[in-house]
Amino acid sequence: MLSLLSLRAGIEAGTLTQAGALALVREAIAAREPDVGALVSLDPDPVVPTKGPLAGIAFGVKDVIDTADLPTQMGSAVYAGWRPRADAPAVARLRALGGVALAKTTTTAFAFMDPTETRNPNAPGRTPGGSSAGSAAAVAAGMLPLALGTQTGGSVIRPAAFCGAVGVKPSFRLLPTVGMKCFSWTLDTLGLFTASVADAAHALALLTDRPDIERLDDAPPRIGLLVPDFCPSPDPDGLAALRRAAEAAEAFGAPVRDLSLPSLYREAFGLHGTIQDFEGIRALAWEHTHHRAALPPLLRAQLDAAGTIPVAAYDAARRVVRAARRDFRTVLKDEGVDVVLTLPAPGVAPHGYGSTGDSRFNRLWTLLGVPCVTVPVPGDGPPLGVQMVAPFGEDAHALAAAAFVERALSR
Amino acid sequence: MLSLLSLRAGIEAGTLTQAGALALVREAIAAREPDVGALVSLDPDPVVPTKGPLAGIAFGVKDVIDTADLPTQMGSAVYAGWRPRADAPAVARLRALGGVALAKTTTTAFAFMDPTETRNPNAPGRTPGGSSAGSAAAVAAGMLPLALGTQTGGSVIRPAAFCGAVGVKPSFRLLPTVGMKCFSWTLDTLGLFTASVADAAHALALLTDRPDIERLDDAPPRIGLLVPDFCPSPDPDGLAALRRAAEAAEAFGAPVRDLSLPSLYREAFGLHGTIQDFEGIRALAWEHTHHRAALPPLLRAQLDAAGTIPVAAYDAARRVVRAARRDFRTVLKDEGVDVVLTLPAPGVAPHGYGSTGDSRFNRLWTLLGVPCVTVPVPGDGPPLGVQMVAPFGEDAHALAAAAFVERALSR
Repeated sequence: MLSLLSLRAGIEAGTLTQAGALALVREAIAAREPDVGALVSLDPDPVVPTKGPLAGIAFGVKDVIDTADLPTQMGSAVYAGWRPRADAPAVARLRALGGVALAKTTTTAFAFMDPTETRNPNAPGRTPGGSSAGSAAAVAAGMLPLALGTQTGGSVIRPAAFCGAVGVKPSFRLLPTVGMKCFSWTLDTLGLFTASVADAAHALALLTDRPDIERLDDAPPRIGLLVPDFCPSPDPDGLAALRRAAEAAEAFGAPVRDLSLPSLYREAFGLHGTIQDFEGIRALAWEHTHHRAALPPLLRAQLDAAGTIPVAAYDAARRVVRAARRDFRTVLKDEGVDVVLTLPAPGVAPHGYGSTGDSRFNRLWTLLGVPCVTVPVPGDGPPLGVQMVAPFGEDAHALAAAAFVERALSR
Repeated sequence: MLSLLSLRAGIEAGTLTQAGALALVREAIAAREPDVGALVSLDPDPVVPTKGPLAGIAFGVKDVIDTADLPTQMGSAVYAGWRPRADAPAVARLRALGGVALAKTTTTAFAFMDPTETRNPNAPGRTPGGSSAGSAAAVAAGMLPLALGTQTGGSVIRPAAFCGAVGVKPSFRLLPTVGMKCFSWTLDTLGLFTASVADAAHALALLTDRPDIERLDDAPPRIGLLVPDFCPSPDPDGLAALRRAAEAAEAFGAPVRDLSLPSLYREAFGLHGTIQDFEGIRALAWEHTHHRAALPPLLRAQLDAAGTIPVAAYDAARRVVRAARRDFRTVLKDEGVDVVLTLPAPGVAPHGYGSTGDSRFNRLWTLLGVPCVTVPVPGDGPPLGVQMVAPFGEDAHALAAAAFVERALSR
């Protein structure tokens, strides 16, 4: 993979120019993109800033996030050729830092579950996951050092784990969702894909102007190991990766204990769909009314059904989720853990391209709005990852814990 | 003014067709618009549905809210002629109910404070207020029975009061802000302008599919009369209107007591600008970076200064506001009141067109995300109003209390 920090180190050392860094990216794209299909459009001749902390760093933008000078097509024929007026704030900020918005990356239609044409660069014959398929695949294939994605269910963490990249879903609204096509205003979250945790932390710190986020030298985190009993049973390979990460962290000095969550969290987990779909049919009302036939089958069926969710069910779900959000920090504190170590998906990416895989291991964390980081677990087969979760606003701790596990696994 | 419910009653009684209702609106626009200047664009030949609970009801859409078939220009040359792809969900919903999106209404640039060309239809020589100037003026001039606006500081309630219309700012996110140009994702709220409280309640109930919202036959509300000590002194005319409304409500059977809020609310009030501007410079990053010279002076200066707000100040402000939001219901309960009766502005609209007036009497309520309704107080001079405020989610109570005060004042 292309490391953002390595490219920047080369530029700062004078061994690489900004244009040279971009040329490396272009070479990688030329080599890998024909097989991976992660990109929707490419800026043929971007301005390459020579100043700014991200000067020379090319980034990809999931195609549900607005860009002023590249089309933004939502993975849907309904938006074919669509050109927004403005850059989304996250894109504008990366550009202001010197980053180069080189490519739009594939997305499932409106970031739902109908698969894209993108292939998993590190697991032939298996889905790259979704909905941020292109961003995950492009970074994991070494084509881009940084890409923006979005998560409403498990759309950053799952594809990152399936493809073997680092994925970060920050705390809700740490990155503004302005200029992102909305599916669910309560859940939609912008996230990042990079080659390493340090790369992700650097990008997030710059994006948010919060230098603390990349202070990764924390003491060993107290880890709560969670196999959620409210999800279906994970696959043996997923469980083995989780156990391996826990053992590596423990051997590296982190106290690890088994964690289970109060029943409130099982209840909240079960309400993700109520909130997502109640908001989705409203957020996509124009598309569903005027372009229903052009929507892909999974999305169309989901929106068709969503109109019957009672307002009272939505209100009740919001109340449960509010209680779960409020208490999560205390739950961890009472258990004596700083972060949760859990699965990002049931196991390796499923065979075939008919599905983007199972988001159930992500939905609770998206609901809670808490920071999540997935880290690849090295191995011989298709990529596997583990996921670190921290309380709301503790993005620095989630990243530090992920960096700790990443180091522990690399020993 | 044109009453939504009266038009609908005529249609249901068969004395008016849907096309006839629209013709009344067109006649009113032809008569008043040359003097008022509330409209940016007008659909010359809209489809007029004959089915649906709002069939035949023309509505206006503030020009920061997306419409698929009318330009959406944000009150700014930067968006001259801009055509969004989709209708915002609130617009799509009104259309699905049979409403006719007849006109876009003027907005200050990006819904900030630089005045529009719109004139106050009921107070010659005075500002109509802002930022939803066109929506307030169009309804108050009797040109439209319904218009959508937005409020980040006081942009619905203040112009409604200045122009003599009913204005409703519902609970935060009761109406999705999807498809609205974002200024502050923590504060932006969609709202409505109508001729009466019953009209507003009917529209809001339909928009949200919450019939309870228009059940206005509540018992007399227990009213807390608030002259905020954290705002500058109101004008004598504003205070007199407030006193008149309180006396009328009391004479009509509502218990009224003086209310003061804990110091937490003064503190929160003072932090509105921190949150608004911190988010505003991010939400409008593309515009500020690429079109700074095209921004009007008040907005440009505000955004120029906003870049220096420390992240820590924003975080601290969010924490104070979270505490204030959490406790507001309890504060009212402990005081034994159901709703707050307070000022929507210091007094009548200021003379001249150099300012849109003072939003300070609205900022706290926008920060708290609580429902607000302003009701005109009948009189001989320029329009004056009073504002009813209820705890979060109690939009039905805010509207019922406003309807109660409206009835009390009309006796």
